[in-house]
Amino acid sequence: MNVRGFRWQRLVARHIGDQIFALAAKIYPICRSITGNGVRHTLYELRRHIALKIHEVPTGTAVFDWTIPREWNIRDAYIKNESGEKVVDFAKSNLHVMSYSVPVQRRISLSELKDHLYTLPGQPDLIPYRTSYYREDWAFCMAHHQFESLQDDTYDVLIDSSLTEGYLTYGEYLHKGETQDEFLFSAHICHPSLANDNCSGVALLTYLAERMAGLRTRYSYRFLFAPGTIGAITWLARNEDTTQRIKHGLVVSMVGDAGGPTYKRSRRGNTLIDRAIVHVLKHSGLEPAILDFSPYGYDERQYCSPGFNLPVGLFQRSRFGEIPQYHTSADNLDFIRPAHLSESYRLITQTLDVIENDTIYINLLPKCEPQLGRRGLYGAVGGDKDAAAANMAMLWILNLSDGVHSLLDIAERAELPFEVIRRTAERLEQYGLLRDSSGER
Amino acid sequence: MNVRGFRWQRLVARHIGDQIFALAAKIYPICRSITGNGVRHTLYELRRHIALKIHEVPTGTAVFDWTIPREWNIRDAYIKNESGEKVVDFAKSNLHVMSYSVPVQRRISLSELKDHLYTLPGQPDLIPYRTSYYREDWAFCMAHHQFESLQDDTYDVLIDSSLTEGYLTYGEYLHKGETQDEFLFSAHICHPSLANDNCSGVALLTYLAERMAGLRTRYSYRFLFAPGTIGAITWLARNEDTTQRIKHGLVVSMVGDAGGPTYKRSRRGNTLIDRAIVHVLKHSGLEPAILDFSPYGYDERQYCSPGFNLPVGLFQRSRFGEIPQYHTSADNLDFIRPAHLSESYRLITQTLDVIENDTIYINLLPKCEPQLGRRGLYGAVGGDKDAAAANMAMLWILNLSDGVHSLLDIAERAELPFEVIRRTAERLEQYGLLRDSSGER
Amino acid sequence: MNVRGFRWQRLVARHIGDQIFALAAKIYPICRSITGNGVRHTLYELRRHIALKIHEVPTGTAVFDWTIPREWNIRDAYIKNESGEKVVDFAKSNLHVMSYSVPVQRRISLSELKDHLYTLPGQPDLIPYRTSYYREDWAFCMAHHQFESLQDDTYDVLIDSSLTEGYLTYGEYLHKGETQDEFLFSAHICHPSLANDNCSGVALLTYLAERMAGLRTRYSYRFLFAPGTIGAITWLARNEDTTQRIKHGLVVSMVGDAGGPTYKRSRRGNTLIDRAIVHVLKHSGLEPAILDFSPYGYDERQYCSPGFNLPVGLFQRSRFGEIPQYHTSADNLDFIRPAHLSESYRLITQTLDVIENDTIYINLLPKCEPQLGRRGLYGAVGGDKDAAAANMAMLWILNLSDGVHSLLDIAERAELPFEVIRRTAERLEQYGLLRDSSGER
Repeated sequence: MNVRGFRWQRLVARHIGDQIFALAAKIYPICRSITGNGVRHTLYELRRHIALKIHEVPTGTAVFDWTIPREWNIRDAYIKNESGEKVVDFAKSNLHVMSYSVPVQRRISLSELKDHLYTLPGQPDLIPYRTSYYREDWAFCMAHHQFESLQDDTYDVLIDSSLTEGYLTYGEYLHKGETQDEFLFSAHICHPSLANDNCSGVALLTYLAERMAGLRTRYSYRFLFAPGTIGAITWLARNEDTTQRIKHGLVVSMVGDAGGPTYKRSRRGNTLIDRAIVHVLKHSGLEPAILDFSPYGYDERQYCSPGFNLPVGLFQRSRFGEIPQYHTSADNLDFIRPAHLSESYRLITQTLDVIENDTIYINLLPKCEPQLGRRGLYGAVGGDKDAAAANMAMLWILNLSDGVHSLLDIAERAELPFEVIRRTAERLEQYGLLRDSSGER
Repeated sequence: MNVRGFRWQRLVARHIGDQIFALAAKIYPICRSITGNGVRHTLYELRRHIALKIHEVPTGTAVFDWTIPREWNIRDAYIKNESGEKVVDFAKSNLHVMSYSVPVQRRISLSELKDHLYTLPGQPDLIPYRTSYYREDWAFCMAHHQFESLQDDTYDVLIDSSLTEGYLTYGEYLHKGETQDEFLFSAHICHPSLANDNCSGVALLTYLAERMAGLRTRYSYRFLFAPGTIGAITWLARNEDTTQRIKHGLVVSMVGDAGGPTYKRSRRGNTLIDRAIVHVLKHSGLEPAILDFSPYGYDERQYCSPGFNLPVGLFQRSRFGEIPQYHTSADNLDFIRPAHLSESYRLITQTLDVIENDTIYINLLPKCEPQLGRRGLYGAVGGDKDAAAANMAMLWILNLSDGVHSLLDIAERAELPFEVIRRTAERLEQYGLLRDSSGER
Repeated sequence: MNVRGFRWQRLVARHIGDQIFALAAKIYPICRSITGNGVRHTLYELRRHIALKIHEVPTGTAVFDWTIPREWNIRDAYIKNESGEKVVDFAKSNLHVMSYSVPVQRRISLSELKDHLYTLPGQPDLIPYRTSYYREDWAFCMAHHQFESLQDDTYDVLIDSSLTEGYLTYGEYLHKGETQDEFLFSAHICHPSLANDNCSGVALLTYLAERMAGLRTRYSYRFLFAPGTIGAITWLARNEDTTQRIKHGLVVSMVGDAGGPTYKRSRRGNTLIDRAIVHVLKHSGLEPAILDFSPYGYDERQYCSPGFNLPVGLFQRSRFGEIPQYHTSADNLDFIRPAHLSESYRLITQTLDVIENDTIYINLLPKCEPQLGRRGLYGAVGGDKDAAAANMAMLWILNLSDGVHSLLDIAERAELPFEVIRRTAERLEQYGLLRDSSGER
């Protein structure tokens, strides 16, 4: 069934880039990890926009091969020198503490301290982002320039954290469409103050869900905001039946920088979501990078594990790991821009336009061309600035609407944007030259 | 069944290029349109060469979504200035009058006249070719240089044309082969004095049909000379049953210039005609352009409409619309040359050679190679200048004649001309090493 | 069934290149042809290494389209000038006499002698290699420089050869594996003193067979040392039933020079042997040439004739016919090197490693990724220098071990060496994450 109301433009608003940026900026300072109050507070922010359902899964719960870990929270952390100066202060940047650091309060030598310090010698001004979720340890992260200036002193070290029985928290929002077939959007929500990775994706999907409310869609849209890896695994373990309904999906991360756009195909490689987004990116005027699936990356690793093998790809701007800002303090609010967020948002909504509107029309006058001129169809479009494209679109649609080719097939073959093909097909249908076969299937 | 008598050389004659050119030159001055006496007189010329059947279809006849229009004829036309000089005179070039111009006899100002003038500002010396088949209007076409020199005068305008109940006229010739399976050749015959587009194609096909008479062929060959679009549609509407028998086909237009050669594939894309002509063009020593099907072009648009989807491609030299002479007075007899016509003719006949002679042989000694030296087969060809190719041809044919691969398959795999493969296979058959399986299928 | 004991390293020995070279050097001086004592003496040398079965097939025996020719032997040959000097002496190089030359003892003029002399004007220092197996003739081969210096003299010519009822001789060795499925290795043994073509291949396969003795393998390995063309045809004619068991095979020739490596695919084109050796060559660090099958070359012509169509390819270093030393006296022991022989040997054994060990594993935890860190699997490999490759190997194997993809499929997809994939899969199997499905099929 083709829900004809869907137009990607309905999802776009003026200043959508600014709105997404503002939400990303709001959640940027929160110290998130794979569990804990940082995740909760972030989800509370999203709940101001959408009717997010927040799930709490107890420590120790088995999820496939994994177990929900203890909940981690942190209140304060610093390194003080003998003069009482805080040379490192968690209050200034939550990247300073390795995520899941166990509590510590000690006075130690520089030499011992150095066993618990991470720096980036090649990027000496930046603080690295480090985690130790499944091995008990503590550490601080700092700029290498500062590390080199540390005096041979005795240091007071404090990490006021806790690692206790608690919960893993994730948020879920379902936009109900005309069918129970689902489109899954997934963003990881476990990184602390990293703007692009992934405040950008979380904020973008929140606005997409918000703007989708009230819109009639063919598919139901599920938005999942969960910690990376363990969060996706937890959701999959608790929703195995639901996965049967997932027909398309995108993992969304790092969507605010100027790079890319990048799309990594699903494991299946050429499903409708793969074809739709590749088509949109190729007609975007940008220089997209289209990557084949590989089992390293974001939560598509879980969705595309062989026991699920869902048609879920990954959308990004720059490719993860290939930019110097990746997992450092340089991934801050200066690194993402409203214009890029807006562009990413538009590319995703245009992809949905393809997914929602792809259908197979039947040419009702398949023997020879119909006389378009008599109907004013050549003339009608002759005034458009896109007249030539529209004329070719008419000819392609009539030629290929044989019950086999869908609009996306035709758009690919004609090398014309899906939107031109869709609008032209709707016009030809109005003139009685085409019949939409989707109701019949 | 393989009719062994067919050799492309039998279709070629010395000076065939000159002959085709002479016929093209003879029909060049006639003022053709999609109906009218110009078409008839052209067909009468062709009937001097072949037993052409001329069909007349009355105005108003429904042909699929179309209706046969009124018949258009023109006797005279001019624009006279106040001094009585004919500044534009139909007698000098029939391109001066827009085809299907309604009759007019008026005295008008320059300003009003200009609403009825077409020029090519970018090619100021050339007269454009314009038509208005389905919208009642009148216009003159002229060189832009002349247009710019028109005085602010009062002009006597005459178009002595008629638009009346009459007929659409087309010609058809059938060469009967051993089977009822047909090869369709089609050339449009509706353009006035444009030499390449398509006096060249009409004349070439006339000579091909003439020389084919008396030749034993596997296929029956149907030659259709009809006005573009409405003519092909008319023929298809009146011959739906016949279309079942069309196994291969070529639309032939613009075959006299120095460009290309160009082949545009059928909608199906890889049928035998597509493979055969692409093979011939690749071994032609020229630099062919092989284009995928698109629904814009000549009458392959109708033959390849989804309700027919016939295996019919388009053969041209330069690609239509991509040369400055296209649809202008520069497409005159200087633009086409006997040498190019002869070359086009040869490429088409070589393509027929593939179509007629492609067959599957069976290697009768499939276990290991037969001892060719003992039979003098290496020696026999050793004297040829093409010895190395012939030796490789023998080895390829023996290796691939397994009941699956046809001669064209082998020629493609071996990257050798079909003719070398065919001759070598016939030699191997004479030596009892191969058996032609075509009779068994 | 997967015989897990197989490791290519077990086939390699220190100084294997020197050993192969020494054997090649030992058989280099022997005057071989397609029959005769030279072949026998060569096979006796090989029998010092492996339990070679030597077959004698009588002259006149029909083998498919061919007949075993008379046996040729030669004792001495020379050309003496009037001064009694031997200007050409078979004792110095057996290339001086065209193979299968009939006996002759005459005094002739220079002019008559020249009708029986072959030289290479373009390579004037080299003696060409010539044969006349199936046409009775005699000739000498010599350097063109020497030819040009021949005086207008009378010459005593002697070829003390015999062409008599006898036998065609070939050697065969079978290493029995766990199954009766066979891997065929084949080397031609009919060339006289040509070191690369094919003392190199004969010696390499002899050492491979020798080192394989006692090794447990999945496949049985058949080694065939036979004269080119007629020898392979003879073996096929006498062993048609055996050919059913041949699942993979390689013709091995010219494996001692610095060129290539070159692999010519089997007629089928993408069988396991094709994929395995192409994979090994692509990861060899060399610049391999991968050629499609063509019906010209070595004995793959017979194995890949359509009546057999065996999955047998050709492995070489330089491609035959494409090097100036080909079929000349420059193909001597200086042209082959132990290092190249050793490298060729290693590439072949690595190919066998793929063939023997390719299997389909099943991921036992297919829903989401298993927690590798908990099992120490990330850590375990973290210390390796190949840690990153091993981590990616784990992820690829787990992702693709879905019952469809074999280890070679995974290695190709991951673009990682088969050996890394195989070792990693075995480790994952030890940890209970994979199950080998090969026993079940």
